[in-house]
Amino acid sequence: MAKLVLIRHGQSEWNLSNQFTGWVDVDLSEEGVKQAKNAGKLIKAAGLEFDYAFTSVLTRAIKTLHYALEESDQLWIPETKTWRLNERHYGALQGQNKAEAAEKWGDEQVHIWRRSYDTLPPLLNADDEGSAANDRRYANLDPKMIPGGENLKVTLERVIPFWEDEIAPKLLDGKNVIIAAHGNSLRALSKYIEDISDEGIMNLEMATGEPVVYDFNDKLEVQSKTKLD
Amino acid sequence: MAKLVLIRHGQSEWNLSNQFTGWVDVDLSEEGVKQAKNAGKLIKAAGLEFDYAFTSVLTRAIKTLHYALEESDQLWIPETKTWRLNERHYGALQGQNKAEAAEKWGDEQVHIWRRSYDTLPPLLNADDEGSAANDRRYANLDPKMIPGGENLKVTLERVIPFWEDEIAPKLLDGKNVIIAAHGNSLRALSKYIEDISDEGIMNLEMATGEPVVYDFNDKLEVQSKTKLD
Repeated sequence: MAKLVLIRHGQSEWNLSNQFTGWVDVDLSEEGVKQAKNAGKLIKAAGLEFDYAFTSVLTRAIKTLHYALEESDQLWIPETKTWRLNERHYGALQGQNKAEAAEKWGDEQVHIWRRSYDTLPPLLNADDEGSAANDRRYANLDPKMIPGGENLKVTLERVIPFWEDEIAPKLLDGKNVIIAAHGNSLRALSKYIEDISDEGIMNLEMATGEPVVYDFNDKLEVQSKTKLD
Repeated sequence: MAKLVLIRHGQSEWNLSNQFTGWVDVDLSEEGVKQAKNAGKLIKAAGLEFDYAFTSVLTRAIKTLHYALEESDQLWIPETKTWRLNERHYGALQGQNKAEAAEKWGDEQVHIWRRSYDTLPPLLNADDEGSAANDRRYANLDPKMIPGGENLKVTLERVIPFWEDEIAPKLLDGKNVIIAAHGNSLRALSKYIEDISDEGIMNLEMATGEPVVYDFNDKLEVQSKTKLD
């Protein structure tokens, strides 16, 4: 039976200042570093050994993975970074304080942008400052694939092909996998793995830095789901 | 023109205590962490941008790479870890203090083990405590490939296939590459790249944490070699 561990990155500097982050490459806060190291200690105490690690191309998730692996004595396992595990792109909301956004667009609209499964946020254009189109890390992507803003539905549609091609085959082969990613890319994975409804998934909250362990059978059906804390 | 940066890992705890390290997975010292971060600052100041990163499966090299990439704002680039970039395996000398080894086997013998290109150290057997055969990170290797001890010649013979298959093609494709590794795996690479003699290579010293930059032409001939400091 293969095991999958999901970890949402530790608290970031913008979690702390309550800003929409998305694809902006914000670092972990001091508290976030502590959470990531603690995740590694929990993983070690649970005796979890991984064969493969996956993360996004955003520093806060990569560092969370590195701290968790180092603390569990397995920094040496193969690691793949992909934009497909990035946080949901929050469009023109990125960088805005959540209270300021509510003042500008109204509480209800901001609530919809945050909690609706399929409503897009106001979009960024490719030539807007802060567009991912100007970031070297996305230079090898077909420009059509670089989002100006995403809802959870669109996020899921770009996360799942990576699951199908790179992660599911390894679990089916009995390998243990760890994924360090983001609130919404992990929501997308959880929705798919657990077959959660469009409405239900928006209520799923993952705590920062808290590892969630899935056990699968050889048909990739979930046998158990456990939080380490 | 492609660029290649080599970095020897920052000072390790056993560099500090003057012990033979080899494949033992010793951490960076506090000074080693500083050196690795400083390497990243030098890389950033030099405006070096990488497409691929390579390192060994030993924590001190992996962490050196991570600090150097983080400080130069490119922790997100693809990273491959391979045992082929590991330090020279020091056989039964691993863990011994260099002064104690000299007392036990004599100064001259220890000097030969350290400085001869093709003399093997006393070997470890697969069932000896501390053999790499018992380490999960080498579980996917043909047991015949797991060394009980290496000289620089043998080290070079397992480093160069990785260069040929994974690194050289990327440089020929115009991609910039960073390699964080070890005194002797980097000696092996330098010997091959610069066509240094068997005697000459033993006198090449690389300072810990000091990036060395090679510029290549499109035939992979060295155009310049620069130390960043």
